[in-house]
Amino acid sequence: MESETNTATLDAFHRGRFHLVQPAARGHRSGIDAMLLAGAVPDGFSGDLADLGAGAGAAGFAVASRCPAARVTLVERAAEMADYARRSAALRENNAFAGRTSVIEADVALAGKARVAAGLADRSYDFIIMNPPFNDARDRATPHALKREAHVMEDGMFERWIKTAAAIARPSAGLAIIARAGSTEEILGALGGRFGGIEMLPIHPHEDEAAIRIVVRAIKGSRGGLRILPGLILHRGTPGYCAHAEAVINGQAALFGD
Amino acid sequence: MESETNTATLDAFHRGRFHLVQPAARGHRSGIDAMLLAGAVPDGFSGDLADLGAGAGAAGFAVASRCPAARVTLVERAAEMADYARRSAALRENNAFAGRTSVIEADVALAGKARVAAGLADRSYDFIIMNPPFNDARDRATPHALKREAHVMEDGMFERWIKTAAAIARPSAGLAIIARAGSTEEILGALGGRFGGIEMLPIHPHEDEAAIRIVVRAIKGSRGGLRILPGLILHRGTPGYCAHAEAVINGQAALFGD
Repeated sequence: MESETNTATLDAFHRGRFHLVQPAARGHRSGIDAMLLAGAVPDGFSGDLADLGAGAGAAGFAVASRCPAARVTLVERAAEMADYARRSAALRENNAFAGRTSVIEADVALAGKARVAAGLADRSYDFIIMNPPFNDARDRATPHALKREAHVMEDGMFERWIKTAAAIARPSAGLAIIARAGSTEEILGALGGRFGGIEMLPIHPHEDEAAIRIVVRAIKGSRGGLRILPGLILHRGTPGYCAHAEAVINGQAALFGD
Repeated sequence: MESETNTATLDAFHRGRFHLVQPAARGHRSGIDAMLLAGAVPDGFSGDLADLGAGAGAAGFAVASRCPAARVTLVERAAEMADYARRSAALRENNAFAGRTSVIEADVALAGKARVAAGLADRSYDFIIMNPPFNDARDRATPHALKREAHVMEDGMFERWIKTAAAIARPSAGLAIIARAGSTEEILGALGGRFGGIEMLPIHPHEDEAAIRIVVRAIKGSRGGLRILPGLILHRGTPGYCAHAEAVINGQAALFGD
């Protein structure tokens, strides 16, 4: 039988400028993906941002920490993960921005009145970020239920999540998604007619390796087409991250250079 | 009134290893795109290759020139462009490979019995390359009819061309496409269920600029997903092309390194 104790760790991000309480082993633990996603928000961003599928809140907290005029709403379905986010917001270490964060326990896939009733009002956010469960449902499932919740992607998930993003976005709001390259077609299909001016930025572990992730950014209602930006290379031979990747991961630079 | 004289130029490619007769001004003139597309064919390729929408034959000739065991069929709808291809095949300068090339005058969008009757038999090619008309029909049309034929893309074109490619491809045949980044979604949609093991390689003019083209490669019947490869940078500050781009354009290296 599995232990049900909530063993947690306290992890530092952005070179100690914010901290996160995370489940030690049971739930999905945030890391580089969340930092890259947060980096897709422009440096000077000001306004209301929703982090859909926020987990323990790493990406949303990273935006709140880097962008002093951002008000961040973390949206998470799993009560246990939402509780970790609230515990992080209560930390003394996060005092500088925690007052600009809040948590909504809701399933991102909700629609219509149920979505509004859950606290996600139409046309109320200036930027939306999402780090949806990555692994295809056909992949081998992770054994633990809470970890599985964060990792297993259902068919049509991007369609439902991006539909929610379009509903809660104000006109010309930004959207940023981190996903696997294999989700490109589903993401572009779901953006169509809702978001345009799409920028796709591949993330490569090394300069001779295929992308392990893509970060896709788009603007609500834009008629602009797709642009594929030069990829971000994480490592170039020497130990550690390349300078730009390191700066993004540590909250000192925006991923798209804006 | 337009002049109807067929003023032609004789252009050298692959550092003079093959030559091409092209319309001086009226038709679509081939260049870097055709050389990059041809570069998507692996170095050791052996077998039957179809160049769909071949124009004057630049890409197909480039494959025949680089791959000594390739038999190349140029498929072109415009009689005038097909005639340029035949004139190029008759050049003394192309003796080394012209015997392994042939021309079919046919519309790539043909289907069923009409396609077979035009000379494109089912399951008869080991590799297919295509450089479809690039510009969206909504863009400003080019004034001249022959140039327009090569540049204006109709809605659903990739669906029709890739359907033809799937029909004439042998099992596990390769496919390579050069297109604009904005066509990504339509291409991925048309590949679905027909071709898999998809590799997408963005082409960037400089390392800080969005891709001007994508080269997409896939395998008939493969179940593999999409991989996004590190982009090819054409220029890095110094005049001329970067080493790898230069080698691909001159037929001395394969674009995907195979």
